[in-house]
Amino acid sequence: MANYPIILSQTKFTHRDTLQYPYEERGLQFGDGVYEVIRIYNGKYYLLEEHINRLFRSAEAVKIALPFTKDELTNLLNTLLQKNEVETDAKVYLQATRGSAPREHTFPEDVPANVYAYVTALSRNLEFLKNGVGTITKRDVRWENCYIKSLNLLPNVLAKQEAKEHGCYEAILHKDGFVTECSSSNVYLVRNGEIFTHPATNNILHGCVRIRVEQFAKKLGIPFNEEGFSVEDIALADELFLSSSTSEIMPIISVDGKTIADGKPGATTKQLQAEYEKDAVILPNQVTQTT
Amino acid sequence: MANYPIILSQTKFTHRDTLQYPYEERGLQFGDGVYEVIRIYNGKYYLLEEHINRLFRSAEAVKIALPFTKDELTNLLNTLLQKNEVETDAKVYLQATRGSAPREHTFPEDVPANVYAYVTALSRNLEFLKNGVGTITKRDVRWENCYIKSLNLLPNVLAKQEAKEHGCYEAILHKDGFVTECSSSNVYLVRNGEIFTHPATNNILHGCVRIRVEQFAKKLGIPFNEEGFSVEDIALADELFLSSSTSEIMPIISVDGKTIADGKPGATTKQLQAEYEKDAVILPNQVTQTT
Repeated sequence: MANYPIILSQTKFTHRDTLQYPYEERGLQFGDGVYEVIRIYNGKYYLLEEHINRLFRSAEAVKIALPFTKDELTNLLNTLLQKNEVETDAKVYLQATRGSAPREHTFPEDVPANVYAYVTALSRNLEFLKNGVGTITKRDVRWENCYIKSLNLLPNVLAKQEAKEHGCYEAILHKDGFVTECSSSNVYLVRNGEIFTHPATNNILHGCVRIRVEQFAKKLGIPFNEEGFSVEDIALADELFLSSSTSEIMPIISVDGKTIADGKPGATTKQLQAEYEKDAVILPNQVTQTT
Repeated sequence: MANYPIILSQTKFTHRDTLQYPYEERGLQFGDGVYEVIRIYNGKYYLLEEHINRLFRSAEAVKIALPFTKDELTNLLNTLLQKNEVETDAKVYLQATRGSAPREHTFPEDVPANVYAYVTALSRNLEFLKNGVGTITKRDVRWENCYIKSLNLLPNVLAKQEAKEHGCYEAILHKDGFVTECSSSNVYLVRNGEIFTHPATNNILHGCVRIRVEQFAKKLGIPFNEEGFSVEDIALADELFLSSSTSEIMPIISVDGKTIADGKPGATTKQLQAEYEKDAVILPNQVTQTT
């Protein structure tokens, strides 16, 4: 059924339909694992090294031993694209859990991690990228180690679902008065030509696209302040945008039903989107070439 | 291989070996589910109604629609014991996830919850129940809704593993200076003949055995204060104990290598253990009948 039928399982390749897990699996019973979502443009990975580095950092933080080196994983992921003959836009989902073992909180001994990765088609959402999206705000009730890209995603799921039920794209999370990030993306405020975003502490995911946003800003001479902003500050924003591998650099045009500035993507956001397109070598249908 | 080969899957019974899940399962990719562990003594459930009530509360909190009423689940769980001819001490693990669907944070539509339950042998740990256990303290980094018994258990896993690596049984978690609970049990301090424990807020699991501890205390005329205590207060404790369906009422005799009082289970803890044994109708090998 899947367009891309070959899946990476451990360090081997197999048909998607053959991969199943027992009910006593650490991911399934404890969310005991880490993951990455990697973007592919025109059949090529974007930010692959950054994603692999982060996967290894996450795995180290939760003490999951991965069954490959970074170079070996790079090769496996490239082979995954080749075997599926991926030539267009897509994404790879990759996860590693602490393996299959009788249920007990403590780590099982001598049990290998369960790793899999598969390709899914993913087109750029040009409509949203051009016109921006709506958001809601919600208290950030997540754990303190959101820098680990773990499978403990229940609060993220609930926040994003609430956004959807409000006809919105994302939920902007705030903790102790400050905006941390969105349910599955980083978020930025632009005011007086400067960018503000939560510092890369334990409380947010250190986004791979976020790294690029900082680089693009430097290149463009736009001050990039790792300085939190509050929910109240949003009302004073000239622009607001979010970033993730799935969403790219996405303008936010409303928060809790209130329009940001004139309700259109701002100039700084557009500049960053243009840099993103250049960096990711996106050729046709560019967001920022219109008009 | 399993002693109890029949598993409940959805509302049917099947052999354990046949139950597997696809890799795009909400439990496996998001920890998007809830669970219970129910104790069985001499082939009979203990606190079954309390566990079923909590499962329904958890499922409602995360908006997972269960495929049965409470009465239907009671019948299914009783049938599970019959089909496996359970006659001794054991436990049932039961979980419900938001189902199998292509990965996306928001809820899948028209997808049934994935539910399963299975029996595992579990003997009482008389050694620990009689002599007590060691613990460590650790900062509580979990999310704010620990009253939901969800599959997002990574911080609990890491805390319990750290306890094990210190030769201990449990990790006592503390938040903003106050002890919340342990990684998979509630915790109580006894001082001057009174019991103190964290109030049943969003920050702790409302343990089924915890409900009983309060009832036993009332019956015994022991003041039960839902009043937090600090890590520093532990040094002044006359007794310390924890409770859970797996651990029952378990004396704690040391914290971070420091002995509690004289290093032996205290009188109040023993009184509560005796009530527990009466309530659960535990006949042979009673902890509190020795000497």
